[in-house]
Amino acid sequence: MEEQIKEALAEIQRGTAEIIDIERIEKLIRNYYENGENFYVKAGFDPTAPDLHLGHTVLIQKMATFQKFGGIVQFLIGDFTATIGDPTGKSETRKVLSTEQVLQNAETYKEQVFKILDPEKTKVMFNSQWLKELGTAGLINLASNLTVARMLERDDFANRYASNTPIAVSEFTYPLLQGYDSVAMNTDIEMGGTDQKFNLLMGRTLQKAYNCKKQQAVLMMPILEGLDGVQKMSKSLGNYIGVTDEANDMFGKVLSISDDLMWRYYELLSAKSLKEIAQIQSDVENGKLHPKKVKEALAVEIVDRYHGKGSGEEAKLEFEKVFAKKDIPTDMPEFEFENGIWICQALVDAGLVNSTSQARRDVKSNAVSVNQEKISDDKLNLEIGEYVLQKGKKSFAKIIIK
Amino acid sequence: MEEQIKEALAEIQRGTAEIIDIERIEKLIRNYYENGENFYVKAGFDPTAPDLHLGHTVLIQKMATFQKFGGIVQFLIGDFTATIGDPTGKSETRKVLSTEQVLQNAETYKEQVFKILDPEKTKVMFNSQWLKELGTAGLINLASNLTVARMLERDDFANRYASNTPIAVSEFTYPLLQGYDSVAMNTDIEMGGTDQKFNLLMGRTLQKAYNCKKQQAVLMMPILEGLDGVQKMSKSLGNYIGVTDEANDMFGKVLSISDDLMWRYYELLSAKSLKEIAQIQSDVENGKLHPKKVKEALAVEIVDRYHGKGSGEEAKLEFEKVFAKKDIPTDMPEFEFENGIWICQALVDAGLVNSTSQARRDVKSNAVSVNQEKISDDKLNLEIGEYVLQKGKKSFAKIIIK
Repeated sequence: MEEQIKEALAEIQRGTAEIIDIERIEKLIRNYYENGENFYVKAGFDPTAPDLHLGHTVLIQKMATFQKFGGIVQFLIGDFTATIGDPTGKSETRKVLSTEQVLQNAETYKEQVFKILDPEKTKVMFNSQWLKELGTAGLINLASNLTVARMLERDDFANRYASNTPIAVSEFTYPLLQGYDSVAMNTDIEMGGTDQKFNLLMGRTLQKAYNCKKQQAVLMMPILEGLDGVQKMSKSLGNYIGVTDEANDMFGKVLSISDDLMWRYYELLSAKSLKEIAQIQSDVENGKLHPKKVKEALAVEIVDRYHGKGSGEEAKLEFEKVFAKKDIPTDMPEFEFENGIWICQALVDAGLVNSTSQARRDVKSNAVSVNQEKISDDKLNLEIGEYVLQKGKKSFAKIIIK
Repeated sequence: MEEQIKEALAEIQRGTAEIIDIERIEKLIRNYYENGENFYVKAGFDPTAPDLHLGHTVLIQKMATFQKFGGIVQFLIGDFTATIGDPTGKSETRKVLSTEQVLQNAETYKEQVFKILDPEKTKVMFNSQWLKELGTAGLINLASNLTVARMLERDDFANRYASNTPIAVSEFTYPLLQGYDSVAMNTDIEMGGTDQKFNLLMGRTLQKAYNCKKQQAVLMMPILEGLDGVQKMSKSLGNYIGVTDEANDMFGKVLSISDDLMWRYYELLSAKSLKEIAQIQSDVENGKLHPKKVKEALAVEIVDRYHGKGSGEEAKLEFEKVFAKKDIPTDMPEFEFENGIWICQALVDAGLVNSTSQARRDVKSNAVSVNQEKISDDKLNLEIGEYVLQKGKKSFAKIIIK
């Protein structure tokens, strides 16, 4: 059993950015193994945007990990603030949602997250349930538990206060409400992004202030990099894989990432255990396994998750078929030019034809492709850029124009 | 009518510390005289301590002045915060009151203030009525109207923040709630002490934020000096006249104040008009009227107010009777000494006896008083201070020892 607990803790710590009170998490896991007692793991989600990408699922994967070791997930939809709106009119993004819309969004969430989470071990909750009944007096009581100075220690508040950027008094209530959620929900562990640290700790503070028997542990996940491997995954940057993306798109997107990023995605997104991943890494290092195969396996796993078992393999076959059609060698002669070059001259200089007049005839007879598209214009000039020239089925050259 | 409006404004401005938006007050008064329309004058009172002294009545007198010119008084009992208590446990003075206690205190208030205010033109209100139903969302909306930086401009907050004295976030809500009262009450003019300026202005700010048609004017009264003429009147300093004091005590306390303070009390506490007071002052300056008579008249007015018409004259007669028994001349020879003097030597030097041996005999036979108390110790030494020496019934001298 000690071995199981140790492995569970390693899985829980995998890929995390920071954990506060790991001792408490260990106690909870041990209590589950020894006495079969469950515990509550909370994470909060915005009720307005149930359109998840893999950046969001990092957290949800971790919630699924907890479910393997006794955790009951508290999937909290923060619908309360959505019912307030932004009375200052400053924020255009804050929409007031009807109860109907909130419930509809909750259904969309469920469709998406139950591909990762076990519905039997998940409670979908809405904080309007207890925050509404808190009332004027309850909120004032709540606000008496924190000082203004402590609030102004939060990074973004500190920066805004220092730079004279207005902070509405109401903004001070949001961390308090998030913390109070943990009081009302009897949470054992709260999870979130590293940017949420202040608010996550508020739950601990308030559980103490309200004399709860528990003080929640806090587990923070890092921000996932997008397909480019540099910027955070985000819809607006276009570097994302959405959980509702088509299977083939999803597969192709995963295959497009670098090998380094692939290992990062394995750590944060794969359901494979640390042991299995270690084995794969060792096989790659020993040359037993090609990295491309490993990337394909990850793509298959992710597609299977969101499109059902077997759909990953299907997407792989489809990808190979398309890829085969357009097959170009990974190795081909490269030629560099400056400022631009006439297509027929390029064909001659790259050794694909013997003369520019031959080149002209080949273009006219549709035997020449640039970047896998047939061309017919024999006056085409290649500007600065990179091009793959193809003549017939088997003659390739890469042209780099600087 | 112009003359009436002018006089009304002069009465309203009488004794005030500061008025914000006197133009609006003038409009309201004019509208009353021209169209008979009333307007609302608000002042807030603590629900826990309905034991008023004349320091409190300065404000209530001013409310009564407004009632003469069309004002309907909104006598606001701030019962809402009393239902919260102080969850931090820091304030021992904040008691949680039951609804019953609040209503009982309201009755005690009425008994006291309806000796000044016209009950027909007074609405006793409780802010729990609208603050309770404000709710969590309503309070957050309310708090969105003010910035943290603006709050920290309030003097006491600024000082505490600068000196690292904790300010609970909940304390930021109190000025907001006071301001919101004015929104809910549709107030035209709010009154308070000069120490309340920030909170009083909050009503103006919030009436604007909530798109009210009105923005209240603000009228601040000064703090009344106590009987000593220096410190503010306060129960804990013992320099107060309570509105429930016995008639004779009240009369005696008013008579004990200095002439300067008497004019101040006339300005802030008398129901006499400015014209009448100006006449009295001129009569005193011309020697037509003795200041003592003027002080007696003030004492009679105040006793009459709290104990019923006629009780002031009764208290005056009673006072004169007691005073007559102990009568000492206002004019008597004065003698100065240094460091102290033997009582018998003092009697000789003041010319009350011919020899110290005669003085000794007089002391022994109870014929000598110091400050109206008989003495029997012929070895008594007078230390630094002022003393009235009396021998027999008619011989007096003042002894000043420096």
